[in-house]
Amino acid sequence: MIKVGIVGGTGYTGVELLRLLARHPHAELRVITSRSEAGQPVSGMFPSLRGVVDLAFSEPSDDALVGCDVVFFATPHGVAMAQAPGLVAAGVRVIDLAADFRLKSPAEFERWYKMPHSALSLLEEAVYGLPEVNREAIRSARVVGMPGCYPTAMQLGLLPVLEPASGGLVEPEGIIADCKSGVSGAGRKAEVGTLLAEAGDNFKAYGVAGHRHWPETEQGLAAIAGRRVGLTFVPHLLPMIRGIHATLYARLTDAGREADFQALYESRYRDEPFVDVMPPGSTPETRSVRASNMVRIAVHRPPGSDLLMVLAVEDNLVKGASGQAVQVMNLMFDLPETAGLLHVPVLP
Amino acid sequence: MIKVGIVGGTGYTGVELLRLLARHPHAELRVITSRSEAGQPVSGMFPSLRGVVDLAFSEPSDDALVGCDVVFFATPHGVAMAQAPGLVAAGVRVIDLAADFRLKSPAEFERWYKMPHSALSLLEEAVYGLPEVNREAIRSARVVGMPGCYPTAMQLGLLPVLEPASGGLVEPEGIIADCKSGVSGAGRKAEVGTLLAEAGDNFKAYGVAGHRHWPETEQGLAAIAGRRVGLTFVPHLLPMIRGIHATLYARLTDAGREADFQALYESRYRDEPFVDVMPPGSTPETRSVRASNMVRIAVHRPPGSDLLMVLAVEDNLVKGASGQAVQVMNLMFDLPETAGLLHVPVLP
Amino acid sequence: MIKVGIVGGTGYTGVELLRLLARHPHAELRVITSRSEAGQPVSGMFPSLRGVVDLAFSEPSDDALVGCDVVFFATPHGVAMAQAPGLVAAGVRVIDLAADFRLKSPAEFERWYKMPHSALSLLEEAVYGLPEVNREAIRSARVVGMPGCYPTAMQLGLLPVLEPASGGLVEPEGIIADCKSGVSGAGRKAEVGTLLAEAGDNFKAYGVAGHRHWPETEQGLAAIAGRRVGLTFVPHLLPMIRGIHATLYARLTDAGREADFQALYESRYRDEPFVDVMPPGSTPETRSVRASNMVRIAVHRPPGSDLLMVLAVEDNLVKGASGQAVQVMNLMFDLPETAGLLHVPVLP
Amino acid sequence: MIKVGIVGGTGYTGVELLRLLARHPHAELRVITSRSEAGQPVSGMFPSLRGVVDLAFSEPSDDALVGCDVVFFATPHGVAMAQAPGLVAAGVRVIDLAADFRLKSPAEFERWYKMPHSALSLLEEAVYGLPEVNREAIRSARVVGMPGCYPTAMQLGLLPVLEPASGGLVEPEGIIADCKSGVSGAGRKAEVGTLLAEAGDNFKAYGVAGHRHWPETEQGLAAIAGRRVGLTFVPHLLPMIRGIHATLYARLTDAGREADFQALYESRYRDEPFVDVMPPGSTPETRSVRASNMVRIAVHRPPGSDLLMVLAVEDNLVKGASGQAVQVMNLMFDLPETAGLLHVPVLP
Repeated sequence: MIKVGIVGGTGYTGVELLRLLARHPHAELRVITSRSEAGQPVSGMFPSLRGVVDLAFSEPSDDALVGCDVVFFATPHGVAMAQAPGLVAAGVRVIDLAADFRLKSPAEFERWYKMPHSALSLLEEAVYGLPEVNREAIRSARVVGMPGCYPTAMQLGLLPVLEPASGGLVEPEGIIADCKSGVSGAGRKAEVGTLLAEAGDNFKAYGVAGHRHWPETEQGLAAIAGRRVGLTFVPHLLPMIRGIHATLYARLTDAGREADFQALYESRYRDEPFVDVMPPGSTPETRSVRASNMVRIAVHRPPGSDLLMVLAVEDNLVKGASGQAVQVMNLMFDLPETAGLLHVPVLP
Repeated sequence: MIKVGIVGGTGYTGVELLRLLARHPHAELRVITSRSEAGQPVSGMFPSLRGVVDLAFSEPSDDALVGCDVVFFATPHGVAMAQAPGLVAAGVRVIDLAADFRLKSPAEFERWYKMPHSALSLLEEAVYGLPEVNREAIRSARVVGMPGCYPTAMQLGLLPVLEPASGGLVEPEGIIADCKSGVSGAGRKAEVGTLLAEAGDNFKAYGVAGHRHWPETEQGLAAIAGRRVGLTFVPHLLPMIRGIHATLYARLTDAGREADFQALYESRYRDEPFVDVMPPGSTPETRSVRASNMVRIAVHRPPGSDLLMVLAVEDNLVKGASGQAVQVMNLMFDLPETAGLLHVPVLP
Repeated sequence: MIKVGIVGGTGYTGVELLRLLARHPHAELRVITSRSEAGQPVSGMFPSLRGVVDLAFSEPSDDALVGCDVVFFATPHGVAMAQAPGLVAAGVRVIDLAADFRLKSPAEFERWYKMPHSALSLLEEAVYGLPEVNREAIRSARVVGMPGCYPTAMQLGLLPVLEPASGGLVEPEGIIADCKSGVSGAGRKAEVGTLLAEAGDNFKAYGVAGHRHWPETEQGLAAIAGRRVGLTFVPHLLPMIRGIHATLYARLTDAGREADFQALYESRYRDEPFVDVMPPGSTPETRSVRASNMVRIAVHRPPGSDLLMVLAVEDNLVKGASGQAVQVMNLMFDLPETAGLLHVPVLP
Repeated sequence: MIKVGIVGGTGYTGVELLRLLARHPHAELRVITSRSEAGQPVSGMFPSLRGVVDLAFSEPSDDALVGCDVVFFATPHGVAMAQAPGLVAAGVRVIDLAADFRLKSPAEFERWYKMPHSALSLLEEAVYGLPEVNREAIRSARVVGMPGCYPTAMQLGLLPVLEPASGGLVEPEGIIADCKSGVSGAGRKAEVGTLLAEAGDNFKAYGVAGHRHWPETEQGLAAIAGRRVGLTFVPHLLPMIRGIHATLYARLTDAGREADFQALYESRYRDEPFVDVMPPGSTPETRSVRASNMVRIAVHRPPGSDLLMVLAVEDNLVKGASGQAVQVMNLMFDLPETAGLLHVPVLP
């Protein structure tokens, strides 16, 4: 059994990790830390875990964590980069669900997260935890920076047409990602803006002047494409809890006008256990992946246009965060990639 | 035009007062105070008021307020009792939407609100602002303590059968009020428990060990009945924004078994502009009063039981708070009682 | 008082017309027809109208309608074109909220609505009821075809940059309208897809192969621009009741790169009573116009792009349907344009 | 592997059975019938099952079903009693999620379901599928009538105090069950009343003149108590999809005033795998059991009253329907009772 520690188990990605790992056939939860809740049973804060998780939150010291094989950070930005060097030195592998190891450029990190990066050599070796792109590198990684929720949906939606192998079917500039997310993406934080009385029965765009997931996605798309990709990313807040829907628009090249995108996507994702390319004409809905690690994708050529449109849905807390992190753990420890992740989506 | 001031205009009862007063034919908004937002235009915080309210929030000093005819307090508990004496001495009439002037006993106030009462003589003269019970006293009041949202629904639901004139049709002990409220009743406060991701798609009871609206309602019911009334009050939190539904159960006396409750309720409320007794067999829904000052009530005799059941719905921010406060203002200033309050409920 | 008839008052645009007209200072409801509900009191179906609307539904014959000054059709497509000729001949003016008089081309109508048009000469004279574009023509119209909900938001969002007077700031081809609507837009029809258990807590695109509001909007934009406009329209279904959010993307021309779009929009809409251009950097939210006739618009230049992005929100049942129809009625009868339409949006 | 057939797999209890059985370690789905969808792949109707269930719906004939070990009926009332006799004669065991085998009295069945019972001898031998009451009888049953969703919550909430062994702690007359359910309980049927635009953002009671779950629960409580129990049952409709909350009130006897109900409940349910008695003072929330087979219960003595109050939550589609049916299947086939049912609730 893999011995697992979680730093910061009181947020939504933390409780989702607990949901997934508590029933994982090859993982054993050993430590869950929380400065504010130390000593409290985890199931006192999350009654859904009564009878499932018997641990109490412990102080976030390294002592217990160094006995783990892997430690997940489900913390605010800045925590993982402070603790990861010591853990890695002690032979513990680190999976960070925050942003500390997402952006490869320390300058970009500082620009977007307003703090200098304090673990530069680990940042350099860290692997970006998108299995569909970096599967082999993840297997041997000591530190993995997990993709953000929006970036996962956008990159998986655009990957097949941006890979050079596809032959330049869309313009790599001027891509538009009109994305919509449930409020759990904002985390379990006391804020007025995500109160039910504010965000319920309501819809709006936000972060249009520049969202932190924008540079991450541009970086990821550039890595995929082997060249700069120009992206406009507009996030919107949905009056619901879980789910991201990305509506992606790219202009076709001459070659693209003749292409069979359905076949391209089906071919590219044929062996991916967590990416489902739906039949032609489909409009995937967020609930079709609720509480599961699946991404569902549909490709369209809107009538009267010169566009490729891709629709992609994921559960932002699963494939967009904790599920993908478990998928990465499976890869790192040579477990079946789908171990503990075969939940059937909850519908209705 | 009545010159109106509002202390504490940044919460939900505040913005609802603004919605109602901005279109009131006989009222003129003069001052809206907020310590935290002083200097900011009101419509910057509430874009729904763009082009409707041109005022900016001002510092909560008395200077501007003393030029008003009436000042509403839409503040946390404790603010009105500090400021009201000065305002009343200056000839300003006070309508408090918080709890400072609800409970007649200073000891009870201190027990439930954890602070001593600092305006005892005003408390003694304050009138409880439930027009259906205290209409005449309200007309001449200098200080009115507005009922809470739940207490309004419970008292209006039980009033006809508890008034001595009805002749003792139900047992005054053992009344059960199973109440359900939308989350706007919790106010516009940054708290985890009322996040959309927590309170959405979820339902639970709360405050079962003793909610502040319990002593208030028992006091009100006793005043109506002319004797002690025993009430069990169980509030629940609905995954929606506006609306309270009270399901009220009272055991019948021998006289009650023969009574025509439908006729009793229709008769009692015939002349009330904001209480609608629905036809026999009705189940009122909260949206039927959404954004309006109406209460709708249905009376039932559940099959196989010895109970009277009353269903009552209101919009907690209107008849349960700001609308009823405007109704009280209308009475205090000899305006038509329905002035500015004839909104048609918003359905769907 | 304008004598008003409504054909088909049992759907959402019907009940919204009733909400607005019942308190209109210059209109008097005379007839509301419904074949299925004839004889039933309107307030029995819609308890929100108890004490507000005293009429009963009547059979949909012309006899009562010819005594009206104006008749609104809030019916399925095809009803208005059957009844309008007789009414117009009798001197009654007609405002159709369905699609019978939207598309100017009978062939396009037949293609999208699967029925031949049966009132061709009325179709030819009918005016498209978008006051911001056709105010003067509306004043004297005998028949007005009201815009659809999505088309209203899209046209008002794009109008200032497509009018020739603005000087060609965006490319008229390749415009993308990523739109999101609450479920009331689907009407009050028993269908599985809009059940709460299906459409709640869920999000998806729909109608991507071609939605009926697409040709209508392309027609309207072409009329505005004086040339063909190429539009990709992708509607999505929001898990909420009221509200439309249009996120509009247009590529800048060279002239557009230097333009001050904020000033352009503010100037264009300065005198429009129901269009609010928000300050720079705003992200309008649907609740800011809930239950009101306002449209709020914000203009953006997304970072790193060559795009103009416009965000527009409306209440699909008010400015997107019944409110705009009342605005049109006001124009047709020389009433103040805002009469009966000054509702403050309901927030929260 | 148990060979499983499902009759009527297109409703919510059907798709929930599929979710649970598709991952069940000892069950194999063999047949899913639907007259209206015959020939269609199941995952075409429910994209959440893509890659999970490969079957297509088949015609509802008995031929394929007789090869199964067990057949679940997830159908409208009346179907199971028509088909069960033939299946049972063929050695197939039957689990009916509809009401055909709930009420022991044919007369009561006919009164509440408006059809005569057509399988009287099977009705007589049928076992009521509440494992916490009838575990041993279920093991050997040929036909099991599964409890309704509300009756499961009510009976499990009241069981410990109504069993004679507890010694008469509450009055068996005058029990009140104020229950609230998400809309999935109404099924996947095209009806106006459960549209998102009708049932969303809204709350009301319904069925107050007599709900079909009332006689079933009175029958079950009487079987538990060994005497008649008088129940007032008031269902309410919650603006959410899954979850039932029962708020139960019973008057204490003299003995009850001295009782330790917390200890009683904990003792009674100590060995029950799917009933969780929460710590004193708890208020269980529906999401704490979302998508799981758990019931959570809290017991209270409301202040100032002579009442026992029990709060019970369940997922109406799992413990209230399909999960409990799988639990019953496990018992019938000597599998571990929790097999395939250890899902961690989905929170948030």
